[in-house]
Amino acid sequence: MVDSAARSLEAVPLSYVPELEPGDDLALAIVQAAERASLGISGGDLLVVAQKAVSKVEGRLRSLADVEPGEPAAELAEKLGKDPRMVQLVLDESTEVIRAEQGILITRTRLGHVCANAGVDSSNVPRGLVSLLPEDPDLSARRLRAELRRRLGEAPAIVVSDSFGRPWRLGQTVVAIGCAGLQPLDDMRGRRDALGQELDATVAAVADEAAGAASLVRAKDGREAVVLVRGLERYIVDADGPGAVALLRDRAEDLFT
Amino acid sequence: MVDSAARSLEAVPLSYVPELEPGDDLALAIVQAAERASLGISGGDLLVVAQKAVSKVEGRLRSLADVEPGEPAAELAEKLGKDPRMVQLVLDESTEVIRAEQGILITRTRLGHVCANAGVDSSNVPRGLVSLLPEDPDLSARRLRAELRRRLGEAPAIVVSDSFGRPWRLGQTVVAIGCAGLQPLDDMRGRRDALGQELDATVAAVADEAAGAASLVRAKDGREAVVLVRGLERYIVDADGPGAVALLRDRAEDLFT
Repeated sequence: MVDSAARSLEAVPLSYVPELEPGDDLALAIVQAAERASLGISGGDLLVVAQKAVSKVEGRLRSLADVEPGEPAAELAEKLGKDPRMVQLVLDESTEVIRAEQGILITRTRLGHVCANAGVDSSNVPRGLVSLLPEDPDLSARRLRAELRRRLGEAPAIVVSDSFGRPWRLGQTVVAIGCAGLQPLDDMRGRRDALGQELDATVAAVADEAAGAASLVRAKDGREAVVLVRGLERYIVDADGPGAVALLRDRAEDLFT
Repeated sequence: MVDSAARSLEAVPLSYVPELEPGDDLALAIVQAAERASLGISGGDLLVVAQKAVSKVEGRLRSLADVEPGEPAAELAEKLGKDPRMVQLVLDESTEVIRAEQGILITRTRLGHVCANAGVDSSNVPRGLVSLLPEDPDLSARRLRAELRRRLGEAPAIVVSDSFGRPWRLGQTVVAIGCAGLQPLDDMRGRRDALGQELDATVAAVADEAAGAASLVRAKDGREAVVLVRGLERYIVDADGPGAVALLRDRAEDLFT
């Protein structure tokens, strides 16, 4: 029997990460915050970083005043009761509109994530600005990991997270939109249960569950952009791995919709 | 600034919960397992219990040999390459078939959850048997909580969990199909961010994220049915509350599908 203590999970917010701005050094901010909280970061740890923090340091902020909405955006905005400049930004970030009704705009982003407003939002950014999702959150995760490796001598795994709605169930859950060094999926097909039968549970979305776990301890007012998660060593790998794009279902294979 | 340590989350599997059978006393098994692991259970804790364990003690097992498939089940089984008796059980548990193609059968259960095979599955049960979801997992959670309160003098919150697939994203995540004493949703609408603006993040599906967090430490071979989660005190309430049905979106309001 496996020792329970060996597989306990712990998630702790890094309270001392400061408000971030374009060009800020996120790795440095994390290292300093961990030091201030007397939390050591090791290669077996996972850091879950809120998308907003990554978008800010990467300068993925737009001023609504600078956006010139086109005809399709204006029409859609009219129908939804939204700001046409906001809708223009959403369309710019999307390859497909999935739903546009009752004030809600759900699209598939250029990266392939399906979410409300293509992840464009105005909370936790200065008034008049909105934030876009990082251009390539897997790349953001890999870069942050490399920079932490350089500073710490060892590299924690990184997940870039965002909160998404989902069909059929109320509430949003926080999922992984980028990752490096964490196995995003745990494929259990072929493994057997305690009675020797194949498991019905097939593939666990580890990166999404880890992002959700981190979210449970993070203040949502933007003051806690990073959560340290311990106890996922068995999913943490030296190579950066496929990233969160591995979590995206091929449209052709998507039987739910 | 909030002290990080005060809001850390911890999840520990109860390794000593034995293999369960119909009629077994789940509360007693949990109390004994916690004692054996020297883990105290308090009123601020959450216990996430795998659906399979609840189904077993409630006798929600069926022998495939006893199932007489009707014509619709036989036709669907033929199309999907499935056992017609299994399909009959799935249809019995469902109000609506959402998708039936490529060997996959997704339905809406009588309770309103949308998942593969209405939660009917054969892993972690003796050969020839399949398990159905608990008839009313919120009631199961409330009963278990009451029984734990009787035995311990205080009542932890309870989540009954199962792993569900989801549209657009690969892998399953573990979600709450029953709950008692845990606020299933954290409604943040109207709250403000650090800059004084309203949060875009609206309603967090706390119970689903907690179920997913627990899943990250649980052995999937059925030997660890229960996970103790600490650090969610702010979502734990004395009243049992609305249960996991509060997580179900009204069909009319479901814009995603």
